This record gives sequence, structure tokens and C-alpha cells, in this order.
Amino acid sequence: MSDKPKVAVLGSGSWATAIVKMLCENLNEVGWYIRKQSTVDYIKENHHNPNYLSSAEFKMEQLNISSNINEIVNYADILIFAVPSAFVKAEFDKITESLSSKIVFSAIKGIIPESGLIVGEHFNQKLNIPFENIGVITGPCHAEEVAMERLSYLTIACRDMDKATVVSNCIKSRYIKTKISDDIIGTEYAAMLKNIYAIAAGVAHGLGYGDNFQSVLMSNSIREMKRFIKKVHKMKRNINNSAYLGDLLVTGYSTFSRNRMFGNMIGKGYTVKSAQMEMSMIAEGYYAAKSAYVLNEKNKANTPIIDAVYQILYQNKNPKKVFVKLTEKLD
Amino acid sequence: MSDKPKVAVLGSGSWATAIVKMLCENLNEVGWYIRKQSTVDYIKENHHNPNYLSSAEFKMEQLNISSNINEIVNYADILIFAVPSAFVKAEFDKITESLSSKIVFSAIKGIIPESGLIVGEHFNQKLNIPFENIGVITGPCHAEEVAMERLSYLTIACRDMDKATVVSNCIKSRYIKTKISDDIIGTEYAAMLKNIYAIAAGVAHGLGYGDNFQSVLMSNSIREMKRFIKKVHKMKRNINNSAYLGDLLVTGYSTFSRNRMFGNMIGKGYTVKSAQMEMSMIAEGYYAAKSAYVLNEKNKANTPIIDAVYQILYQNKNPKKVFVKLTEKLD
Repeated sequence: MSDKPKVAVLGSGSWATAIVKMLCENLNEVGWYIRKQSTVDYIKENHHNPNYLSSAEFKMEQLNISSNINEIVNYADILIFAVPSAFVKAEFDKITESLSSKIVFSAIKGIIPESGLIVGEHFNQKLNIPFENIGVITGPCHAEEVAMERLSYLTIACRDMDKATVVSNCIKSRYIKTKISDDIIGTEYAAMLKNIYAIAAGVAHGLGYGDNFQSVLMSNSIREMKRFIKKVHKMKRNINNSAYLGDLLVTGYSTFSRNRMFGNMIGKGYTVKSAQMEMSMIAEGYYAAKSAYVLNEKNKANTPIIDAVYQILYQNKNPKKVFVKLTEKLD
Repeated sequence: MSDKPKVAVLGSGSWATAIVKMLCENLNEVGWYIRKQSTVDYIKENHHNPNYLSSAEFKMEQLNISSNINEIVNYADILIFAVPSAFVKAEFDKITESLSSKIVFSAIKGIIPESGLIVGEHFNQKLNIPFENIGVITGPCHAEEVAMERLSYLTIACRDMDKATVVSNCIKSRYIKTKISDDIIGTEYAAMLKNIYAIAAGVAHGLGYGDNFQSVLMSNSIREMKRFIKKVHKMKRNINNSAYLGDLLVTGYSTFSRNRMFGNMIGKGYTVKSAQMEMSMIAEGYYAAKSAYVLNEKNKANTPIIDAVYQILYQNKNPKKVFVKLTEKLD
């Protein structure tokens, strides 16, 4: 594969927009699939996304932008999916072009609700994409800071390290540093689990716990994450690398995280339903809590925080009581 | 030693006051040495500390309070030092009572400037207190949250685990959970190093780095802390326990941390001198950076963050340039 491959981003949210911006620093042309024709038209006329990261300006001669997913799939060697996990299945169902020669990266942080799988596993098991053609782009990264060109570090994971390197070279720039990894399963689970821990952090805040407890919750979360991932996919990994701990921290300590906000409302007394209705979209951690809980029933890692979030979200347990019990299990 | 030993706190700051409050939950009487007679008089009349945590009310019949350090040393079996590290030597110089039968705990987070040693080592090397009589009380803990009775977790470390248990039993309560540890050296170094990392976090913020970078800085800090402590005192420890990672997080993410504030001013362009003059007292991390740097010249752990802070504080290097170089060394 050439050093300047054809790359396309699929999705129109803030993270998709940020990735297009990063790619435009290095590539002469970037493919961009956006579901709504009206958004495509807006970008063509105004040179920025109308809804997300609108401060990021694009040069139209650099973009191959379309609302036809097959056109973009056909165009690119490397596809980077950055749609919400709840829409992955629907988008893939539209694809009639063959994916057999494509490299498919996920920048999606979550679980595919229909399959209960992380994206890489879903690509592999449900779409028959071989693991050596699957990759993950993971944070710690608020898209908004990419728009502001604030220094950020990304991890590019793929079993085939050459492919990770190619994508890494397309993404790194003055304000983006990249690291490659072969732990695609671990980094993806970390990206998913952190959303559950961010919900827990939000619930704790909503219930009135302070900064002292938050730091204990986060240090327990990273140890729990390590135990959980080890059961799923045992390999040598340093859980304190940015792709795991950094990603947890940027979400757990961010008051802008949708997951933390969702947890906070529940801690303050909203029901799960009303908190979801109050927010414009469902927080990724909501699905993740169920999948992680179900998976762990088999794996049996010690996961008191995931269990607590699951009990609150799916078993209608009282958050205050659940957290009193949880505090006994932390140290 | 009895389960209800005679315990005294030495110091009058917010952390000392918080510890007295914690002890009063369990003990009929608590000794309290305060340097200034006027503060002693104020507390006796108004039942709270005039300067720190004034919302914490005390019952006078529970306090044996005095400005005579020897009276308090003579009274207690267990002495808990919670004076700023810069005053430890001066306070010890006043003690004429024998310490040979005393258990001496440190709740001091820092380095003794005169000896360049962490407090436990200073007690041992300079005051001939045997290690089995030395202990450490460590966070993650803002004293202010103890005053508000918000749930907090403390680690009580002592080589003699029975003594750690006795102190732990005196301190734990409805809102304080405790854990015991035999890693007195490691927990003390963690408490000291975290102040350097908090300065680094402050400098980064002052220079305009965002949340993405902060999370990378913190995940690099905990790995650096692990490498540093391992060189000083090799033993099996989980660096992600609350006493290490939790303590780092509560300080690194706190906008109230003196160390972070100090770093922030330097990042914003204050000289070290003017930042120190602007703040009413010198941030502990200032001394810690020098001691850690000097110690590590011998130990040779890879410590790019400590090195960067040292260069800024002691070698008059430009913070912006130092951080540009530092970002190349993080991942």
C-alpha cells in the first residue's frame, strides 16, 4: 500500500469531522461520507460542518464528499468509521460494494447494540472482515480540542502493524501525536468501558460525592478495567498507557462527557428514561453497561463498578443505595 | 498497645485540623499541639480553628490542646505530625522529651528541605526513630471534604502492620474508609512526587494545553512515578491503588491545589520568584522537584516530567520550550 493511500471517513458527527480535519493535514484528498444530502450541500457551500466543530474550515478541493456510501467505499482503500455505534449496522446494510480488499478502521467508541459486540469484533464476526484488515483509532481526545488544534495523542491499533503505521502517518501532524499498538481488542474495550466509568463518575457527582471519592473511583476503575480486559483478551499491556488510562481520565473528568452528564442526572434523581429523554441522544455507556455486564457473567472478573451501573440502569435499583454498597467494595 | 491509645496531632493547618476531627469520631480525648498560643486560645473559646476548616466544630472536653510541644509529646503514645515539611526540623528541635517509646506518624506531604529526605527517612536517619515505629497517613484527600464529611479513603502505612491497624481504627468512621499498607517509602514518595506532577499539570494549563494533553500527562506521570519509586524501593506494589494513582489524580485535577496553581502561574509567564511571592506560601512541589531530581541523578529512572519541572524551576529554562521538548517524550 502506498504511503498516501485513499482514505475516507464515514460519519458527520464531531469526531468524524475532527478526523477529516486531521487527514486534511496530510492528504491531497479525503473521502467523506455523510448520510444527509443537506449536510453535504451545506459543507460544499460553507466549507464547514453545520452541526459539529463548525470552527473547522475545509478546502473543498481536498474533499471528496458524498451522501452515497457506496461511492465513498468504492473510492477509498482505507475506511474510517465514525458513526454512532447504534447506526453502524444500518450504514453497513447499505453497502453493496465489496469490502474484501478494504482496510476498515473504527473510530467508534462503543458497542453495536444489535450484536452486543465491540466494533472490531462486529466487523470480524458479522461482516467477515479479517482481523488483519481491522483497526481502531482511540483517544484520549475531545474532538473540540482537535478543532482548536490543541496537542492531542492518538493510538492507532491494528494487528498488522504496517497498516497501523500507514494510518498513523496519515493522521499525525503538528498538533496530533500518534502511537501504534497491536492491542485492538484491549484498546476497543477500554474505549467502551470508560463510558461506563464516566456514568459512574456522573452518578457519584450527582449523589453528592466529592473529589476525594472521584479519585478513588477512578483508581478503582482502571484496576477494574485491567481485570475485565485481561479476561477478554490476555496479552501484555500497560493499562496506564494513554489509550487506556488517558482515555478513562479525559472522559471521567470531563464535565462535557455525555456519559458523565447522563450519570449525573441519574444521581440527582432523574429516572433512566427521563434522563435519556432529556438528552438528545442515548449515551454510549448505556449500551456498554449491558454488554459488559452480560459478557462478564461468563468471564467473572471482579467488576463492582460495572455491576453497580448495570443495577441502576437496568434493574431499577436505587442509585443511592447501590453506591453505598459500592463504596464498601472500593479501596 | 491498647485499642484506644493516646493520640496527638501536631500542627494547625487544614490537614492537621481534619485529622483531629477524624480522631474525635473515635477517641475520648485527642492531643493537639498548635504553635501559636493565640490560636490555642481562640479554639478554646470558639471551638473551631480560626484559620482553617473553621466549619469543623470541636467539643472542648475531647481536646487536650497546648502550644507546648513537649507537653503533647509527653501525653501521647502516637504522634501524628501534620506541619508543613519546611517547619518539621524547627518543631523537632524544640522536643526535649524522649521519642524512643513513641510511634511517630507523618501526615506531611513533602520533603524536609534541610535534609532533602522524605519525612519517614528523615525521622529514621536524623532522629533515630526505628522504621517499625514510623508510619504515614496518605490521601487522596482534600481536608475541606473531610470537614464536610464527604466520603474519603485514606491509606495508613507502617512496616509494623499492627501499628497501622491501631491508627487505622482511630481514624476510620462513617465518612472515612481506611486501608493499611506496609509500603511506607512508596506511599511517601508518591505523596511527594504527585506535587511535582501537579506543578507540571498547572504549567501545561497555563501554557494553553487542553484536557486531551492533561490526560496524557497524567497517564505518563503515573508511569514515571512507578519507575521512580521502583528505583528507590523495590517491592511489589500496585501503583494504581488509591494511595498512589488516586492521590495523583486528586491533586493533578484539582484547581485548588497550591502546586497546580503555582505551575499555572509559571505557565502564564510569571517568574518562579514572582509566582512564589504572589502565593502566601511556597508550594511543596517546589522543594520536591529539586530533591527528586537530585536523587534521580543517582538512580537514573527515566523521568522526563520531573526533569522538565526542575529545568523550569531551577535552571531558569523557558517553560514553553521545555514543554515542547517534553511533549516529544510522552506517549
